[in-house]
Amino acid sequence: MEKIKVSVHGLGNIGKYVIEAIEASPDMECIGVVRRAKSIGTNKLDLRGCGEYPSLAELEAAKGKPQAALICTPSRHAFEDDSLYIQRGINTVDSFDIHEDIASMVEKLGVIAKSNKCTAITAAGWDPGTDSVFRALFQAMVPVGTTFTNFGRGRSMGHSAAARAIEGVSDAVSITIPIGGGRHSRLVYVVLEKGETLERVKERIAADDYFSKDPLEVRSVPTSGELALVCDASHGVLMERTGASGLTANQKLSFDMRIDNPALTAQIMVSCARASTRLEPGCYTMIDIPPVALLNGDRMSLIKKLV
Amino acid sequence: MEKIKVSVHGLGNIGKYVIEAIEASPDMECIGVVRRAKSIGTNKLDLRGCGEYPSLAELEAAKGKPQAALICTPSRHAFEDDSLYIQRGINTVDSFDIHEDIASMVEKLGVIAKSNKCTAITAAGWDPGTDSVFRALFQAMVPVGTTFTNFGRGRSMGHSAAARAIEGVSDAVSITIPIGGGRHSRLVYVVLEKGETLERVKERIAADDYFSKDPLEVRSVPTSGELALVCDASHGVLMERTGASGLTANQKLSFDMRIDNPALTAQIMVSCARASTRLEPGCYTMIDIPPVALLNGDRMSLIKKLV
Repeated sequence: MEKIKVSVHGLGNIGKYVIEAIEASPDMECIGVVRRAKSIGTNKLDLRGCGEYPSLAELEAAKGKPQAALICTPSRHAFEDDSLYIQRGINTVDSFDIHEDIASMVEKLGVIAKSNKCTAITAAGWDPGTDSVFRALFQAMVPVGTTFTNFGRGRSMGHSAAARAIEGVSDAVSITIPIGGGRHSRLVYVVLEKGETLERVKERIAADDYFSKDPLEVRSVPTSGELALVCDASHGVLMERTGASGLTANQKLSFDMRIDNPALTAQIMVSCARASTRLEPGCYTMIDIPPVALLNGDRMSLIKKLV
Repeated sequence: MEKIKVSVHGLGNIGKYVIEAIEASPDMECIGVVRRAKSIGTNKLDLRGCGEYPSLAELEAAKGKPQAALICTPSRHAFEDDSLYIQRGINTVDSFDIHEDIASMVEKLGVIAKSNKCTAITAAGWDPGTDSVFRALFQAMVPVGTTFTNFGRGRSMGHSAAARAIEGVSDAVSITIPIGGGRHSRLVYVVLEKGETLERVKERIAADDYFSKDPLEVRSVPTSGELALVCDASHGVLMERTGASGLTANQKLSFDMRIDNPALTAQIMVSCARASTRLEPGCYTMIDIPPVALLNGDRMSLIKKLV
């Protein structure tokens, strides 16, 4: 059976794990990584034998057209980077995670994906992504009730970036700690700029939109080297729903996971890249995808094994 | 907005909860229950105002054609009862639960559903059903690893029926108790026939295919009235998967639910009846259905709310 040819766009933390997840998929192969020309050859990350190209055109010239591209650049670049591939009729998968903009992403990508007869899967990570699917299934099983999504304990990329942008902070890591009922406290480790005080920085962090609604603790560490000691990739979710099926109350559902964050995100993106080759043209979130389409194997064998 | 018109076929324990779940769905209405002529008017179950009809033809004559029928007869009648509706172009949902025959059900129903331009959703309960979807998602997230589905503590309908069929048993209830690693022990309460001994009955149960592979305890109670005291509808599942995403091990996922068994089965069937009106002709299991199709509401609003 011919392998699904995919490529990777952008080589940060997620890109590295995407290359590994493709390598671990018996039905897929990575034909190359597209990244900024100035980064090529300079990476500290293991490319596991994948060639690097400064543009899609050069990748295509050397290796042909991929069937799907895994977009591993930051969320704010996702639409632009997706478009680059979709305009060439290549499916895309991104892990766009700006929740309030997902619906408009779906609409915009849907238009160009349909007109180029390919598929775009957006918001394909664990939240948004598989958590979205669990929320949908929980609601289908227990339509009346409350779902709490409790994140952590783990590092939040968004909150860490917000803390680093605060005046007087030279480096920061923000840890999300669940405190029940879908609420969270934030533990922020900061490296202060010279002459700055922890009190002033804490005040500024507490006033920031990212932090103003949650309990906050700020701790100072002397160097980025020490910051690295609290900065691993462990994360988790506890999703809980209690409610009624039909007229029967006290139905209790929960999903709990403890994971390496970028490894899971990358694996979900790769499973979605497989699905992208099995769907009609258009843009999809994970709640729009038949789960069987994510898996290696033919449908009837998967039904025999999993249903 | 016009409500989805559905009907119920068969009125046992599941049928009763299906009527309740339809009543609780703002976008659906139950136009009638089809059941054996001799049962009509004799039910102890609350029909909540639904009319009873001895045949689909009489339901149609009185109320018009339903868009989907919820088939609430035992699994061994599912294909025959599904066919009755599919041949009239009416979608069906069943909770067929004979795991080893699901693939052939899908093939047989697929042929007649396509030729009658309607949809059939089979194996739509919690296992098979939503558990199948969780198994599929867990595999997409963590492709290399082991999933254990631990059932219970709760009453097994199949094992209870098997115990009742044993020589010397006048009535029985079998409770499934999880003992870890996807294995189970069985606790069987029996009412003995006159002159029978617990020892002989236990030997026969232990030799039965349903029980021969698992640890077994058999307890005798004097009457069916006392049997009723251990016979409620509580059930549960703990599904656990540990494995690797890409090349990263120690990814841990678990799904835990504690539920009223027939209420959940019925709710899932009703959510599938909604989905049946949104799918292309053919036969589906729950792993074939985009999760968003199960939910009341339009797709973009659901994406905004859940993704």
